[in-house]
Amino acid sequence: MIRVIRDGWIVTQDPERRVLRGDVAIDGERILSVGGRYEGGFDEEIDASGDIVMPGMVNTHTHVAMSVMKGVVDDLSFPDFLDKVFRIDADRTDDDLDIGARLGCMEMMRGGTTTFVDLYYSEDVIAEAVKDAGIRGVLCWCALDPDKTTQNGDPVDNAKAFRSKYKGERKILPSIGLQGVYVCGEETCVRAHEYAVSENIPLNMHLSETRGEVNTHIKETGKRPAEWLDSIGVLSPNVIAAHSAWLTMNEVRLMGRAGMSVSLCPVSNMKLATGGVAPVPEFLENGVNVSLGTDGNTTNNSLDMLSEMKVCGLLQKSSRWDARVTPAQSLLDFATINGARAIGMGDSIGSIEAGKMADIVIMDGKAPNLRPLLPDNIIANIVYSGSSLNVKTVMCQGDIVVDNGSIMTLDCEDVLSRSEGMWESLCRR
Amino acid sequence: MIRVIRDGWIVTQDPERRVLRGDVAIDGERILSVGGRYEGGFDEEIDASGDIVMPGMVNTHTHVAMSVMKGVVDDLSFPDFLDKVFRIDADRTDDDLDIGARLGCMEMMRGGTTTFVDLYYSEDVIAEAVKDAGIRGVLCWCALDPDKTTQNGDPVDNAKAFRSKYKGERKILPSIGLQGVYVCGEETCVRAHEYAVSENIPLNMHLSETRGEVNTHIKETGKRPAEWLDSIGVLSPNVIAAHSAWLTMNEVRLMGRAGMSVSLCPVSNMKLATGGVAPVPEFLENGVNVSLGTDGNTTNNSLDMLSEMKVCGLLQKSSRWDARVTPAQSLLDFATINGARAIGMGDSIGSIEAGKMADIVIMDGKAPNLRPLLPDNIIANIVYSGSSLNVKTVMCQGDIVVDNGSIMTLDCEDVLSRSEGMWESLCRR
Repeated sequence: MIRVIRDGWIVTQDPERRVLRGDVAIDGERILSVGGRYEGGFDEEIDASGDIVMPGMVNTHTHVAMSVMKGVVDDLSFPDFLDKVFRIDADRTDDDLDIGARLGCMEMMRGGTTTFVDLYYSEDVIAEAVKDAGIRGVLCWCALDPDKTTQNGDPVDNAKAFRSKYKGERKILPSIGLQGVYVCGEETCVRAHEYAVSENIPLNMHLSETRGEVNTHIKETGKRPAEWLDSIGVLSPNVIAAHSAWLTMNEVRLMGRAGMSVSLCPVSNMKLATGGVAPVPEFLENGVNVSLGTDGNTTNNSLDMLSEMKVCGLLQKSSRWDARVTPAQSLLDFATINGARAIGMGDSIGSIEAGKMADIVIMDGKAPNLRPLLPDNIIANIVYSGSSLNVKTVMCQGDIVVDNGSIMTLDCEDVLSRSEGMWESLCRR
Repeated sequence: MIRVIRDGWIVTQDPERRVLRGDVAIDGERILSVGGRYEGGFDEEIDASGDIVMPGMVNTHTHVAMSVMKGVVDDLSFPDFLDKVFRIDADRTDDDLDIGARLGCMEMMRGGTTTFVDLYYSEDVIAEAVKDAGIRGVLCWCALDPDKTTQNGDPVDNAKAFRSKYKGERKILPSIGLQGVYVCGEETCVRAHEYAVSENIPLNMHLSETRGEVNTHIKETGKRPAEWLDSIGVLSPNVIAAHSAWLTMNEVRLMGRAGMSVSLCPVSNMKLATGGVAPVPEFLENGVNVSLGTDGNTTNNSLDMLSEMKVCGLLQKSSRWDARVTPAQSLLDFATINGARAIGMGDSIGSIEAGKMADIVIMDGKAPNLRPLLPDNIIANIVYSGSSLNVKTVMCQGDIVVDNGSIMTLDCEDVLSRSEGMWESLCRR
């Protein structure tokens, strides 16, 4: 089946970062041609005249199943936040994980995210929701030391079993994760990382989100977290370190040398008031691949990658007192092509190029907040003026998952109507 | 004519900050009843079952006519930014001011803003656009010293003539403004302020946005800007000081004693990387009325009050290392009832109460990003999870200006199609 998206402003995110006017033709799940007038035969046309046609965004750190827990732990001190969220999290059932995952997928796809990296337990439950949603899930089963978890069995083994079960699913990349050095000793870290390398899959982990976790690790090991991970061989291109807000230059250099990725979560860091600011200019200078994550709905409280790009830029500029830091094009790179690289899919998603998977977002070119719209300001308008709900139509691997604002793949009424009950049962206690 | 908005979650913003489930009845331009089931006769029903019904937001600082200049001066150093924006601004025609104002009104009303404070020259041109848009404009003709302006004639006199012409217009409050102490000497400040007091109208001015302007003023007068304004009698409840990011505790106390208002512009401050953070907890402790502004489309680059609330909270929390600062309810207050107070309309707009003007926004309760939605998390969901485009329907003083996402009052096609030409002619030079 050949679909043609007609006459849009195509923000390709190709190596030259070209913006083209014209058509994108899609053959099945892959992009056939980009730009100009597609003159070949086709089965379906999508009119995108004057609209923005851009790559689907890649959210490299979230906990999608927490989407039923919005507004439970806001405006609290960090100890109070942790206390409440851990208490709730321990009580979850497969049913509310399922509804949470569906709701989070709905929010993400509606806002133009076509791929996300999830870090949680029970990723098998989440995988079923993601399969139904039809977006791409890099689902990292969260490992931690066996004596520090409520999971049954050994968490690393659970992650491996999960991967075995879902390996080969069309849009699911079953992977492994680490909660963080505060609950993951050397053996857990090394085992998880060796597995990620042997399978060549991403390993998502929390790293240096708070000053407290860094200081505790120094006390216990004599090393800062990233130095310690380097010393035990757990820094590599497979690793996506979320937050990464409290780092020294030495750690940044180690991370760059390892060729690893970070997932900045600026909204979450600011809202939790954990104080650190990720050293983005230094990451870029030292070859760390910088991507963006929303974190979960209990901290952000939204899964909105457009807003995340803007806030990322605002935080970097304001904390450096330099408006030139993280220009719009860099921010868009973080949310698209760099996110694709972080999960090892830089050759297959993250930009609109012939041969790549058709992960494509169409944004409404008739929205007042995006106009005037010219090739000169299109990147700035997406990043600084755009809203997630400017997204009209979303395609993931050739499948239309959102059509003119309507979610095509899930039973929205059912998910929404059950979400309040989930909130009540989890959050009232 | 009686309209009834049925069965919403009503975020009243009344003195008790009640959230009610039920109906809002509107008789002409005023609210007749709030909450419960309205059993009286009516002419029209609006189904808002499960939707959020909240007060129209009040944007207390913008330059609406700059909306055609999006994406021209991003990611630049502050001197380069000023140089370019001043150069463009000097070349503007009535025609592009008109299109800019219409476009900005479209963006604001689409996103739930029903009242805005504008600071610019040629407010007569802007007033015509705002009248057509049907939202409320507090239009502050910008005064500065006669030897420092491109305006013809004396700017204070121009402001007075503008007010005379538009006084009594239903939704226009013609007012006066001051560019800032860097181009407004004592005589200009005192004349403008005396006029504002004598007419009992708001005076919007830039105050202590950058460190440079503060230091220059200290060199020239021996006083910090707010101290100097206090010494010449130009601090009063009529004044709305925009930005207010570089202040001492002494200045905060003077401002509090004067009973004045500030308009925080956190997105603009962060994006321009001017370094200062408005001392919000100190404002609140000292009785300064805190409201929110988006600033113009050249700095923000959006006129999105929902996003402004969230970023305001993020900046305050992160810069204080305390997540408890500016909780969601305070942020919503800044954008609604406090904005109404800032413009002297605290008794007539800013909350949903019987007898007040019907400035009402309906947000889509079926949007995944706002669910689960309960009385417990509704304020947090609006502020931390909401998107401006969740807004479905907007009423200003009883008139429906946005109906189910469609702007009802302006010729959108015409405005949008002319906006690119305006950008080309202004910004290419």
